[in-house]
Amino acid sequence: MVKKILVVGAGAIGGFYGALLAKAGADVAVVCRSDYDTVKLNGFTIHSQDLGTWRFAPAGVFRHASEFREEADCLLLCTKVIPNLDRAALIREAVSPKTAIVLIQNGVDIEREIQEAFPDNELISGLAFICCNRIGPGRLAHLAYGRLTLGSVNGPVSTKTRELNDLFGRAGIECLASADVVTERWKKCVWNAPFNPLSVLSGGLPTSAILASQEPFVRHIMEDVCRIAAALGHPLPERIVDNHIDSTRTMPAYKTSMLIDYEQGRPLETEAILGNALGAGRRAGVKTPYLESVYALMKLRELQRALS
Amino acid sequence: MVKKILVVGAGAIGGFYGALLAKAGADVAVVCRSDYDTVKLNGFTIHSQDLGTWRFAPAGVFRHASEFREEADCLLLCTKVIPNLDRAALIREAVSPKTAIVLIQNGVDIEREIQEAFPDNELISGLAFICCNRIGPGRLAHLAYGRLTLGSVNGPVSTKTRELNDLFGRAGIECLASADVVTERWKKCVWNAPFNPLSVLSGGLPTSAILASQEPFVRHIMEDVCRIAAALGHPLPERIVDNHIDSTRTMPAYKTSMLIDYEQGRPLETEAILGNALGAGRRAGVKTPYLESVYALMKLRELQRALS
Repeated sequence: MVKKILVVGAGAIGGFYGALLAKAGADVAVVCRSDYDTVKLNGFTIHSQDLGTWRFAPAGVFRHASEFREEADCLLLCTKVIPNLDRAALIREAVSPKTAIVLIQNGVDIEREIQEAFPDNELISGLAFICCNRIGPGRLAHLAYGRLTLGSVNGPVSTKTRELNDLFGRAGIECLASADVVTERWKKCVWNAPFNPLSVLSGGLPTSAILASQEPFVRHIMEDVCRIAAALGHPLPERIVDNHIDSTRTMPAYKTSMLIDYEQGRPLETEAILGNALGAGRRAGVKTPYLESVYALMKLRELQRALS
Repeated sequence: MVKKILVVGAGAIGGFYGALLAKAGADVAVVCRSDYDTVKLNGFTIHSQDLGTWRFAPAGVFRHASEFREEADCLLLCTKVIPNLDRAALIREAVSPKTAIVLIQNGVDIEREIQEAFPDNELISGLAFICCNRIGPGRLAHLAYGRLTLGSVNGPVSTKTRELNDLFGRAGIECLASADVVTERWKKCVWNAPFNPLSVLSGGLPTSAILASQEPFVRHIMEDVCRIAAALGHPLPERIVDNHIDSTRTMPAYKTSMLIDYEQGRPLETEAILGNALGAGRRAGVKTPYLESVYALMKLRELQRALS
């Protein structure tokens, strides 16, 4: 039974999902860096539009994974996926043989690094569809969505995946178990690949304006991603591009997470979302000129930011 | 003999080339909007690193072409090529049957509009390689270069082209007569198409940094332009991409004109440079995904600027 859980990278996403698991009865400790002092003292306070306001007092609050002296049933890794952050090193000292590593992170092809570092551990890959922000030290605002998709990278849905699903479900959010979570990642990438970089490169346009002005371009980028996924053996549903376009059109004007990170001067997940997709496409021999273009432009933009 | 000249759009470029023609003995009047009062009173002062400092007192200074009551041998049109600026309307009242219209403007495929509006007039198309800025009302700084290429759009080098060449040469700048000025425009577009938009979209990088970081992307955009030119019957020299790359690498860190316009909140020549190239490519059935991408991103950036 999944009982003891360690969340590494307890920012907005990690703090929120950790708080849900604790609410459902699990024993949840956290590793958090920036808000350590506040969280150690007062835990997290979650303000959720759907689930109300509550306090989450973790079973343990640590600065480093090495301080965690128990054996976790599951370790939720919730950091961003950014260059120069060695995710394996970050969690190594808290991973025991029985620990299932659960990635709740953005991007595609982000499992390999962890799989290679921990070949004997169970690895669960997760995707969060959520709008949740840190509004102060230890204070999180859950604004919308929350759905989680979990699944094993290779193989059928595991017992621990099912147990995590039950816990999240009990805490009040939808959680899907997927037998093909890698395909789910590619589906999400089809949306992220245009809207995240275009929101930054345009200088701050919301998704609605991007779509209204340059729908064909958005579609081209999406189609590049679909071709990569198909070449890798993850063919996406035929209507996925249309569906993403339609659902974006009915969404309220939405500021992407990459735009928010950019505006706040934080590192961007350009590599996890675009770089990894392109790398996979290159290895598979797929031509993706539109995706290449937005990637190159993001690299220029990041270079300029680093220089200024 | 070319004697009477009217410059329409006497900003930095028009003012500078008008001043050179006057220096060489021509009778040069100007239409200028923004600095009208100063120029009417004091003319232009040109500070040139190569040619020294001198004052240019135009033979006439007008707010509108309609105020020009003479017959010009040549009308130099030196405005930017931007949407919502009807270039034909701007010059119509100053064009007599004997007037040769000389475009000293950026972009590709910019002659058609004028050719259709004035089918019976001689049309000379010109390209300026120059770094010249307005540094105050009626004050121009000529910082570098200055070379001009002139030629008839269809047909051999005309008498008036030769006479203008002589005048510019006498004033101290290199002027080439080209029997294939349209091809020259495409050559220049090969450089402009990547570096102008990338300097803006990156948030302000100079050409050197763009090239050092994303040379393959720059080359892809250049190759798209080459393919369009070739499809239109203007095949470019085989080594043009390499040559542009090499010469950019040896240039000092250079801020593109589009970046300067962007920073100063002025309209951008996105349509003249990218839009016209893409339109021509589309009509010729050429696929140009990289060029399409930078164009779409420029449109988003301009939209964002218009909204903010």
